[in-house]
Amino acid sequence: MRELTEVQIQLCAALRRLAKAVVVISCAHERRRFAMAATAVSEISIDPPAMLACINRNASIHAPLAASADFCLNILHGSHAEISALCSGKATGEERFAIGNWAESATGIPYLKDAQANIFCRCSSFLTRGSHSIFVGDVFEALQAGEVDPLVYVDGRYTAVRTLAG
Amino acid sequence: MRELTEVQIQLCAALRRLAKAVVVISCAHERRRFAMAATAVSEISIDPPAMLACINRNASIHAPLAASADFCLNILHGSHAEISALCSGKATGEERFAIGNWAESATGIPYLKDAQANIFCRCSSFLTRGSHSIFVGDVFEALQAGEVDPLVYVDGRYTAVRTLAG
Repeated sequence: MRELTEVQIQLCAALRRLAKAVVVISCAHERRRFAMAATAVSEISIDPPAMLACINRNASIHAPLAASADFCLNILHGSHAEISALCSGKATGEERFAIGNWAESATGIPYLKDAQANIFCRCSSFLTRGSHSIFVGDVFEALQAGEVDPLVYVDGRYTAVRTLAG
Repeated sequence: MRELTEVQIQLCAALRRLAKAVVVISCAHERRRFAMAATAVSEISIDPPAMLACINRNASIHAPLAASADFCLNILHGSHAEISALCSGKATGEERFAIGNWAESATGIPYLKDAQANIFCRCSSFLTRGSHSIFVGDVFEALQAGEVDPLVYVDGRYTAVRTLAG
Protein backbone atom coordinates (compact mmCIF):
# COMPACT_ATOMS: atom_id res chain seq x y z
CA MET A 1 0.00 0.00 0.00
CA ARG A 2 1.30 3.42 -0.83
CA GLU A 3 1.90 5.94 1.90
CA LEU A 4 -1.13 7.81 3.22
CA THR A 5 -1.41 11.52 2.60
CA GLU A 6 -1.76 13.99 5.46
CA VAL A 7 -5.54 14.27 4.87
CA GLN A 8 -5.93 10.48 4.83
CA ILE A 9 -4.10 10.19 8.16
CA GLN A 10 -6.32 12.94 9.62
CA LEU A 11 -9.46 11.20 8.33
CA CYS A 12 -8.42 7.81 9.78
CA ALA A 13 -7.90 9.46 13.18
CA ALA A 14 -11.25 11.29 13.00
CA LEU A 15 -13.12 8.12 11.97
CA ARG A 16 -11.85 6.25 15.06
CA ARG A 17 -14.14 8.67 16.91
CA LEU A 18 -17.23 7.94 14.81
CA ALA A 19 -19.01 5.19 16.78
CA LYS A 20 -20.67 2.71 14.44
CA ALA A 21 -23.07 -0.18 14.91
CA VAL A 22 -21.61 -3.42 13.65
CA VAL A 23 -23.63 -4.94 10.83
CA VAL A 24 -22.92 -8.16 8.95
CA ILE A 25 -24.01 -7.99 5.34
CA SER A 26 -24.87 -11.40 3.88
CA CYS A 27 -25.98 -12.78 0.54
CA ALA A 28 -25.93 -15.88 -1.64
CA HIS A 29 -24.78 -16.05 -5.23
CA GLU A 30 -24.18 -19.02 -7.55
CA ARG A 31 -24.66 -21.50 -4.69
CA ARG A 32 -22.11 -19.78 -2.43
CA ARG A 33 -22.82 -17.81 0.74
CA PHE A 34 -21.04 -14.57 1.56
CA ALA A 35 -20.90 -12.57 4.80
CA MET A 36 -18.88 -9.54 5.82
CA ALA A 37 -18.85 -7.26 8.85
CA ALA A 38 -19.41 -3.66 7.83
CA THR A 39 -19.74 -0.40 9.72
CA ALA A 40 -20.41 1.86 6.73
CA VAL A 41 -24.12 1.10 6.65
CA SER A 42 -26.85 3.72 6.82
CA GLU A 43 -30.53 4.29 6.28
CA ILE A 44 -31.36 6.45 3.25
CA SER A 45 -35.08 6.90 3.72
CA ILE A 46 -38.26 5.33 5.04
CA ASP A 47 -40.26 6.37 1.99
CA PRO A 48 -39.25 4.56 -0.10
CA PRO A 49 -37.69 2.17 2.43
CA ALA A 50 -34.02 2.16 1.41
CA MET A 51 -30.61 1.46 2.95
CA LEU A 52 -27.03 1.80 1.77
CA ALA A 53 -23.77 -0.03 2.45
CA CYS A 54 -20.25 0.97 1.38
CA ILE A 55 -18.15 -2.06 0.45
CA ASN A 56 -14.49 -2.29 -0.49
CA ARG A 57 -14.01 -3.46 -4.07
CA ASN A 58 -11.48 -6.03 -2.83
CA ALA A 59 -14.04 -7.72 -0.54
CA SER A 60 -15.29 -11.12 -1.72
CA ILE A 61 -18.91 -9.99 -1.25
CA HIS A 62 -18.42 -7.08 -3.68
CA ALA A 63 -18.80 -9.19 -6.86
CA PRO A 64 -22.12 -10.87 -5.90
CA LEU A 65 -23.56 -7.50 -4.82
CA ALA A 66 -22.36 -5.88 -8.03
CA ALA A 67 -24.21 -8.73 -9.80
CA SER A 68 -27.38 -7.54 -7.97
CA ALA A 69 -27.68 -10.31 -5.37
CA ASP A 70 -30.38 -9.58 -2.77
CA PHE A 71 -28.75 -9.05 0.63
CA CYS A 72 -29.47 -8.89 4.33
CA LEU A 73 -28.15 -6.33 6.83
CA ASN A 74 -27.84 -8.14 10.17
CA ILE A 75 -27.56 -5.66 13.08
CA LEU A 76 -25.36 -7.44 15.62
CA HIS A 77 -26.19 -7.90 19.28
CA GLY A 78 -23.74 -6.85 22.02
CA SER A 79 -22.73 -10.49 22.48
CA HIS A 80 -21.78 -10.96 18.80
CA ALA A 81 -18.20 -9.62 18.82
CA GLU A 82 -16.88 -13.06 17.85
CA ILE A 83 -19.21 -13.25 14.83
CA SER A 84 -18.00 -9.80 13.78
CA ALA A 85 -14.36 -10.90 14.11
CA LEU A 86 -15.03 -14.02 12.04
CA CYS A 87 -16.69 -11.93 9.33
CA SER A 88 -13.94 -9.27 9.39
CA GLY A 89 -11.06 -11.37 8.16
CA LYS A 90 -10.48 -13.98 10.88
CA ALA A 91 -12.21 -16.51 8.59
CA THR A 92 -13.02 -16.71 4.90
CA GLY A 93 -15.86 -18.11 2.77
CA GLU A 94 -18.13 -20.66 4.40
CA GLU A 95 -16.13 -20.59 7.67
CA ARG A 96 -17.66 -17.19 8.39
CA PHE A 97 -20.95 -18.99 9.06
CA ALA A 98 -19.40 -21.30 11.71
CA ILE A 99 -20.78 -19.31 14.69
CA GLY A 100 -24.31 -17.95 15.16
CA ASN A 101 -27.80 -19.04 14.32
CA TRP A 102 -27.74 -18.65 10.52
CA ALA A 103 -30.91 -19.36 8.56
CA GLU A 104 -32.12 -18.95 4.99
CA SER A 105 -34.97 -16.67 3.92
CA ALA A 106 -37.78 -17.87 1.66
CA THR A 107 -35.93 -16.30 -1.27
CA GLY A 108 -32.59 -17.90 -0.35
CA ILE A 109 -30.81 -15.08 1.49
CA PRO A 110 -28.68 -16.24 4.43
CA TYR A 111 -29.44 -14.24 7.58
CA LEU A 112 -28.38 -14.29 11.23
CA LYS A 113 -31.53 -15.26 13.08
CA ASP A 114 -30.32 -14.08 16.50
CA ALA A 115 -29.20 -10.67 15.27
CA GLN A 116 -30.98 -7.70 16.87
CA ALA A 117 -32.58 -7.02 13.49
CA ASN A 118 -32.42 -8.21 9.87
CA ILE A 119 -33.10 -5.83 7.00
CA PHE A 120 -33.67 -7.60 3.70
CA CYS A 121 -32.81 -5.59 0.60
CA ARG A 122 -33.03 -5.84 -3.14
CA CYS A 123 -29.87 -4.32 -4.59
CA SER A 124 -31.23 -1.48 -6.72
CA SER A 125 -28.13 0.44 -7.79
CA PHE A 126 -24.54 1.11 -6.94
CA LEU A 127 -21.96 3.80 -7.43
CA THR A 128 -18.21 3.13 -7.33
CA ARG A 129 -15.89 5.80 -5.88
CA GLY A 130 -12.22 4.91 -5.66
CA SER A 131 -11.67 1.84 -3.49
CA HIS A 132 -15.34 1.41 -2.49
CA SER A 133 -18.82 1.01 -3.94
CA ILE A 134 -21.98 2.42 -2.38
CA PHE A 135 -24.76 -0.16 -2.75
CA VAL A 136 -28.33 1.07 -2.49
CA GLY A 137 -30.88 -1.50 -1.38
CA ASP A 138 -34.66 -1.34 -1.54
CA VAL A 139 -35.94 -2.84 1.71
CA PHE A 140 -38.62 -5.49 1.27
CA GLU A 141 -38.73 -6.95 4.79
CA ALA A 142 -37.26 -6.29 8.24
CA LEU A 143 -37.29 -8.48 11.34
CA GLN A 144 -36.23 -7.88 14.91
CA ALA A 145 -35.37 -10.23 17.78
CA GLY A 146 -34.41 -9.98 21.45
CA GLU A 147 -33.33 -6.99 23.48
CA VAL A 148 -32.09 -3.68 22.10
CA ASP A 149 -28.37 -4.08 22.87
CA PRO A 150 -26.20 -3.15 19.89
CA LEU A 151 -22.58 -4.02 19.28
CA VAL A 152 -20.72 -0.78 18.60
CA TYR A 153 -17.22 -0.28 17.20
CA VAL A 154 -15.32 2.83 18.25
CA ASP A 155 -11.64 3.75 18.67
CA GLY A 156 -10.59 0.37 17.29
CA ARG A 157 -12.61 -1.62 19.87
CA TYR A 158 -15.98 -3.23 20.42
CA THR A 159 -18.19 -1.56 23.00
CA ALA A 160 -21.71 -1.82 24.33
CA VAL A 161 -23.96 1.15 24.95
CA ARG A 162 -25.56 2.41 28.10
CA THR A 163 -28.29 5.01 28.47
CA LEU A 164 -27.14 8.43 29.66
CA ALA A 165 -28.56 9.41 33.02
CA GLY A 166 -31.11 12.20 33.00
CA MET B 1 -48.32 12.12 6.17
CA ARG B 2 -49.82 9.09 4.56
CA GLU B 3 -50.00 5.82 6.43
CA LEU B 4 -46.84 3.74 6.59
CA THR B 5 -46.75 0.39 4.82
CA GLU B 6 -45.98 -2.83 6.67
CA VAL B 7 -42.37 -2.80 5.41
CA GLN B 8 -41.89 0.83 6.47
CA ILE B 9 -43.12 0.02 9.98
CA GLN B 10 -40.77 -2.97 10.11
CA LEU B 11 -37.85 -0.83 8.91
CA CYS B 12 -38.53 1.92 11.49
CA ALA B 13 -38.51 -0.70 14.25
CA ALA B 14 -35.29 -2.30 12.95
CA LEU B 15 -33.54 1.09 12.64
CA ARG B 16 -34.20 1.87 16.32
CA ARG B 17 -31.70 -0.94 16.94
CA LEU B 18 -28.99 0.50 14.67
CA ALA B 19 -26.82 2.54 17.05
CA LYS B 20 -25.51 5.66 15.34
CA ALA B 21 -23.01 8.31 16.26
CA VAL B 22 -24.58 11.75 16.31
CA VAL B 23 -23.02 14.13 13.80
CA VAL B 24 -23.96 17.75 13.15
CA ILE B 25 -23.50 18.74 9.53
CA SER B 26 -22.82 22.44 9.06
CA CYS B 27 -22.25 24.81 6.16
CA ALA B 28 -22.57 28.44 5.09
CA HIS B 29 -24.32 29.67 1.99
CA GLU B 30 -25.22 33.17 0.83
CA ARG B 31 -24.23 34.68 4.19
CA ARG B 32 -26.38 32.27 6.21
CA ARG B 33 -25.18 29.44 8.44
CA PHE B 34 -26.90 26.06 8.53
CA ALA B 35 -26.52 23.16 10.98
CA MET B 36 -28.43 19.91 11.32
CA ALA B 37 -28.01 16.82 13.48
CA ALA B 38 -27.71 13.72 11.33
CA THR B 39 -27.14 10.06 12.04
CA ALA B 40 -27.08 8.85 8.44
CA VAL B 41 -23.41 9.69 7.95
CA SER B 42 -20.78 7.22 6.83
CA GLU B 43 -17.26 6.94 5.53
CA ILE B 44 -17.02 5.85 1.90
CA SER B 45 -13.28 5.38 1.55
CA ILE B 46 -9.88 6.54 2.74
CA ASP B 47 -8.44 6.54 -0.80
CA PRO B 48 -9.78 8.88 -2.03
CA PRO B 49 -10.81 10.34 1.36
CA ALA B 50 -14.59 10.55 1.02
CA MET B 51 -17.66 10.66 3.26
CA LEU B 52 -21.41 10.59 2.69
CA ALA B 53 -24.45 12.03 4.43
CA CYS B 54 -28.13 11.32 3.73
CA ILE B 55 -30.27 14.43 4.13
CA ASN B 56 -34.03 14.84 3.95
CA ARG B 57 -35.08 17.04 1.04
CA ASN B 58 -37.29 19.04 3.43
CA ALA B 59 -34.32 20.02 5.63
CA SER B 60 -33.20 23.65 5.38
CA ILE B 61 -29.60 22.52 4.84
CA HIS B 62 -30.57 20.51 1.75
CA ALA B 63 -30.67 23.48 -0.65
CA PRO B 64 -27.20 24.87 0.22
CA LEU B 65 -25.69 21.38 -0.04
CA ALA B 66 -27.45 20.79 -3.36
CA ALA B 67 -25.85 24.10 -4.45
CA SER B 68 -22.47 22.50 -3.63
CA ALA B 69 -21.65 24.33 -0.41
CA ASP B 70 -18.58 22.92 1.34
CA PHE B 71 -19.60 21.32 4.63
CA CYS B 72 -18.27 20.05 7.93
CA LEU B 73 -19.22 16.81 9.71
CA ASN B 74 -18.91 17.50 13.44
CA ILE B 75 -18.76 14.24 15.45
CA LEU B 76 -20.43 15.08 18.76
CA HIS B 77 -18.98 14.42 22.19
CA GLY B 78 -20.94 12.50 24.85
CA SER B 79 -21.76 15.80 26.57
CA HIS B 80 -23.33 17.35 23.44
CA ALA B 81 -26.88 15.97 23.65
CA GLU B 82 -28.25 19.52 24.02
CA ILE B 83 -26.47 20.68 20.85
CA SER B 84 -27.93 17.69 19.03
CA ALA B 85 -31.43 18.53 20.29
CA LEU B 86 -31.05 22.16 19.19
CA CYS B 87 -29.91 21.05 15.72
CA SER B 88 -32.70 18.44 15.43
CA GLY B 89 -35.68 20.74 15.43
CA LYS B 90 -35.71 22.36 18.87
CA ALA B 91 -34.36 25.52 17.20
CA THR B 92 -34.14 26.85 13.66
CA GLY B 93 -31.68 28.92 11.63
CA GLU B 94 -29.09 30.90 13.54
CA GLU B 95 -30.52 29.79 16.93
CA ARG B 96 -28.99 26.37 16.30
CA PHE B 97 -25.57 27.97 16.91
CA ALA B 98 -26.57 29.30 20.36
CA ILE B 99 -24.78 26.55 22.30
CA GLY B 100 -21.25 25.20 21.74
CA ASN B 101 -17.94 26.60 20.69
CA TRP B 102 -18.66 27.38 17.02
CA ALA B 103 -15.85 28.74 14.86
CA GLU B 104 -15.29 29.48 11.17
CA SER B 105 -12.72 27.71 9.00
CA ALA B 106 -10.30 29.63 6.79
CA THR B 107 -12.66 28.99 3.86
CA GLY B 108 -15.75 30.15 5.78
CA ILE B 109 -17.27 26.85 6.94
CA PRO B 110 -18.84 26.99 10.43
CA TYR B 111 -17.60 24.14 12.62
CA LEU B 112 -18.03 23.04 16.23
CA LYS B 113 -14.58 23.48 17.72
CA ASP B 114 -15.21 21.27 20.76
CA ALA B 115 -16.63 18.36 18.77
CA GLN B 116 -14.69 15.11 19.05
CA ALA B 117 -13.72 15.53 15.40
CA ASN B 118 -14.44 17.78 12.40
CA ILE B 119 -14.33 16.41 8.88
CA PHE B 120 -14.29 19.12 6.22
CA CYS B 121 -15.71 18.14 2.85
CA ARG B 122 -16.09 19.52 -0.60
CA CYS B 123 -19.49 18.45 -1.89
CA SER B 124 -18.61 16.43 -4.98
CA SER B 125 -21.89 14.85 -6.04
CA PHE B 126 -25.30 13.86 -4.83
CA LEU B 127 -27.98 11.37 -5.67
CA THR B 128 -31.64 11.87 -4.74
CA ARG B 129 -33.76 8.84 -3.81
CA GLY B 130 -37.30 9.49 -2.70
CA SER B 131 -37.39 11.74 0.36
CA HIS B 132 -33.62 11.95 0.81
CA SER B 133 -30.42 12.87 -1.03
CA ILE B 134 -27.08 11.15 -0.54
CA PHE B 135 -24.35 13.79 -0.57
CA VAL B 136 -20.82 12.62 -1.32
CA GLY B 137 -18.04 14.80 0.08
CA ASP B 138 -14.34 14.80 -0.77
CA VAL B 139 -12.51 15.27 2.52
CA PHE B 140 -9.87 18.01 2.46
CA GLU B 141 -9.13 18.33 6.19
CA ALA B 142 -10.00 16.59 9.45
CA LEU B 143 -9.39 17.72 13.02
CA GLN B 144 -9.85 16.02 16.38
CA ALA B 145 -10.12 17.34 19.92
CA GLY B 146 -10.44 15.97 23.45
CA GLU B 147 -11.23 12.45 24.59
CA VAL B 148 -12.81 9.69 22.50
CA ASP B 149 -16.32 9.74 23.99
CA PRO B 150 -18.99 9.70 21.29
CA LEU B 151 -22.63 10.61 21.62
CA VAL B 152 -24.67 7.69 20.30
CA TYR B 153 -28.36 7.57 19.43
CA VAL B 154 -30.14 4.23 19.79
CA ASP B 155 -33.70 3.13 20.54
CA GLY B 156 -34.88 6.75 20.45
CA ARG B 157 -32.40 7.90 23.13
CA TYR B 158 -28.95 9.34 23.56
CA THR B 159 -26.38 7.02 25.07
CA ALA B 160 -22.67 6.96 25.82
CA VAL B 161 -20.43 4.00 25.09
CA ARG B 162 -18.35 1.87 27.39
CA THR B 163 -15.68 -0.64 26.47
CA LEU B 164 -16.71 -4.30 26.71
CA ALA B 165 -14.81 -6.25 29.33
CA GLY B 166 -12.32 -8.83 28.00
